[in-house]
Amino acid sequence: MKPTHDELLKLRNQYRDELLENVIPFWEKNSPDKEFGGYFNCLDQDGTVYDTRKNVWLQGREAWMFSKLYNAVEKRPEWLEMAKLGIDFLANHAVLPNGRMYFSLNQQGRPIHQQRKIFSECFYIMALSEYSRATGEQKYADEAKRIFDLVWEWSKDLSKVGRPSFDGNPPSITLAVPMILLNLIEEVTGDNWELMRSEIDDCIFRMLLHVHSDRKIVFENVSPDGKFINTIEGRQLNPGHAIEAGWFLQHWAQKLGRKDLEEIAINVIRWSFDLGWDSEQGGIFYFLDSEGHSPNELEWSLKLWWPHTEAMYALLQNYSLTGLDEDWERFKRCHEYTWSHFPDPNNGEWFGYLDRYGNVSQRFKGGPYKGCFHVPRGLWLTWKLLDKLIDL
Amino acid sequence: MKPTHDELLKLRNQYRDELLENVIPFWEKNSPDKEFGGYFNCLDQDGTVYDTRKNVWLQGREAWMFSKLYNAVEKRPEWLEMAKLGIDFLANHAVLPNGRMYFSLNQQGRPIHQQRKIFSECFYIMALSEYSRATGEQKYADEAKRIFDLVWEWSKDLSKVGRPSFDGNPPSITLAVPMILLNLIEEVTGDNWELMRSEIDDCIFRMLLHVHSDRKIVFENVSPDGKFINTIEGRQLNPGHAIEAGWFLQHWAQKLGRKDLEEIAINVIRWSFDLGWDSEQGGIFYFLDSEGHSPNELEWSLKLWWPHTEAMYALLQNYSLTGLDEDWERFKRCHEYTWSHFPDPNNGEWFGYLDRYGNVSQRFKGGPYKGCFHVPRGLWLTWKLLDKLIDL
Repeated sequence: MKPTHDELLKLRNQYRDELLENVIPFWEKNSPDKEFGGYFNCLDQDGTVYDTRKNVWLQGREAWMFSKLYNAVEKRPEWLEMAKLGIDFLANHAVLPNGRMYFSLNQQGRPIHQQRKIFSECFYIMALSEYSRATGEQKYADEAKRIFDLVWEWSKDLSKVGRPSFDGNPPSITLAVPMILLNLIEEVTGDNWELMRSEIDDCIFRMLLHVHSDRKIVFENVSPDGKFINTIEGRQLNPGHAIEAGWFLQHWAQKLGRKDLEEIAINVIRWSFDLGWDSEQGGIFYFLDSEGHSPNELEWSLKLWWPHTEAMYALLQNYSLTGLDEDWERFKRCHEYTWSHFPDPNNGEWFGYLDRYGNVSQRFKGGPYKGCFHVPRGLWLTWKLLDKLIDL
Repeated sequence: MKPTHDELLKLRNQYRDELLENVIPFWEKNSPDKEFGGYFNCLDQDGTVYDTRKNVWLQGREAWMFSKLYNAVEKRPEWLEMAKLGIDFLANHAVLPNGRMYFSLNQQGRPIHQQRKIFSECFYIMALSEYSRATGEQKYADEAKRIFDLVWEWSKDLSKVGRPSFDGNPPSITLAVPMILLNLIEEVTGDNWELMRSEIDDCIFRMLLHVHSDRKIVFENVSPDGKFINTIEGRQLNPGHAIEAGWFLQHWAQKLGRKDLEEIAINVIRWSFDLGWDSEQGGIFYFLDSEGHSPNELEWSLKLWWPHTEAMYALLQNYSLTGLDEDWERFKRCHEYTWSHFPDPNNGEWFGYLDRYGNVSQRFKGGPYKGCFHVPRGLWLTWKLLDKLIDL
């Protein structure tokens, strides 16, 4: 059941047109705050601002996205201006003298909340790196490197960002940290990644501790030597997250020419998709428990946009490498669920949160964790991969 | 459509029997940790321990519940022993020298997590007070009073429990704090509440700032002078929580003989039930947004056990005061949804989490926030109120 050239061409146009005609225009129209800078990211179905707060993750991600579009799609000056709006706002309001950042700011840039995590910093680093490439200004790359070095240190000991550590739970490590660092290195270094070879190998090594090939399972939290932990956290599965980790790994497998890693990444994506797929209602579950207990997360059965946009690209990447029917089938199944449930042709952008049965659970297009990022990134990556598959 | 004497008698037996035959035996059988003390509170549908951690809220609440049963239902020595198991475990492992407490411990009592909130302390205070009345030992009452005084101070400035305060959001106050303090005073003082009259009045005053009679809405978060705040937090409604606040207020209206407060409490319960009721699928929504936006909480549409057990009692309390058909209808509607969805006659105790459509979403009977508390407390309170109504 391999796709024909025409089918691939049609798909490629579908992804490209959705990105450029339905998704990006939504953010261009509704998100810029021309008065105070930065972006409104709490946007209702039709783009109405339902809260003026600015979540730092999403400010960084949107600045990254517009820089990326400028660098990789078309040198539209208005995209560079969009990126600048976020970069300047974050530089002026979100960064503390010690390099730590806030999690959310009000419209004017005054702090609302700070997390004891490193992700605000990570998304700002991504944005600075891409923006530096877009403008050619080295100072942004330098600032990205300065904060990256801090984050690298903090990531080894989260008590440095104020996270208390107690000894009641067995020691554990999390997939999220080496995964975001590996993606950051891809973003920060561009073509000069050889200089960070030891950090790259370190991240890959740490990520692979979470991949239990004997059980075909990727655990979010394992012991420091990679063992299963039989607690709520140890049993936690987040299939979309593991799929995202899979395509991050695959990018490095290709750069490093590592066939062994290519094979592992293919399987990480296949296993996580197969495990996460809801065979009754379709779509990918948000959380599962590896031993079949009820997940503790009340939202475990929701179908979120980002596991689907990540899986769309990751599954097509698998097919592009294997050419196998089974991988094409997985991609098509994910593609069809995604496109028949998430897009909103009337107002632009995609819905983010469906209940288990596929009904829209939250109608907003932007919120504290959803912004101009996973939908456009997934569409852009998939479009570009389809270009490659049809040799455009 | 007022109930007949026979109907009330049948209901009364239903609530009593469920408490004594289905719910309490589940906890007696499955929760005691005879090796390390305290209670297992992560219990699967059939009572199997799926995680050995011990959540401090639930340790305190279960110790309170068994003390209360001993004091108010029957002087069974095994209930006092059950209570002692939690009291000793908490005293030995959960309390820091400065009076602050942990949020969760491992089976042996080593800390896992500490919140920057005051609720662990509150539920321990409740437990100590009730246990002191059960055993007649003053030292438990003294310890309750010592920690209560600390909590009272912390509650005025949460930076004292490590909660950083930023100026990006407009200043706000939360319903949860005066509400739990008012309930604590009821528990701590017993019949000697006159000594805390100013604290009682203070809590009631602060709670009423959240009640906007013009809109028939109880807001979780308002400005310090009680004004509506048009942010995600300001618009947040938690109907079950407001209903619980309503019956706390009603208890004090009766003790204080305040007819004005009686009327407000009746309305708080009616308005919140009417607003929270899902007219399409039945049951009480977990969260809503006062202006009709999508709530930010991903779990907003779930039907949780505790809003229903709180509403069951609160609505019957309303009927007991008004004798009106409309209040009896609300009680019956809530009673019927609750009893047809939550109980598990096969394994004991009740399910805690249903999706919007009434399907069990999490099958466990105990988890980080559900333990031996809302179901037995609601059954006990409703049973005792039915006794009063039928003049038993």
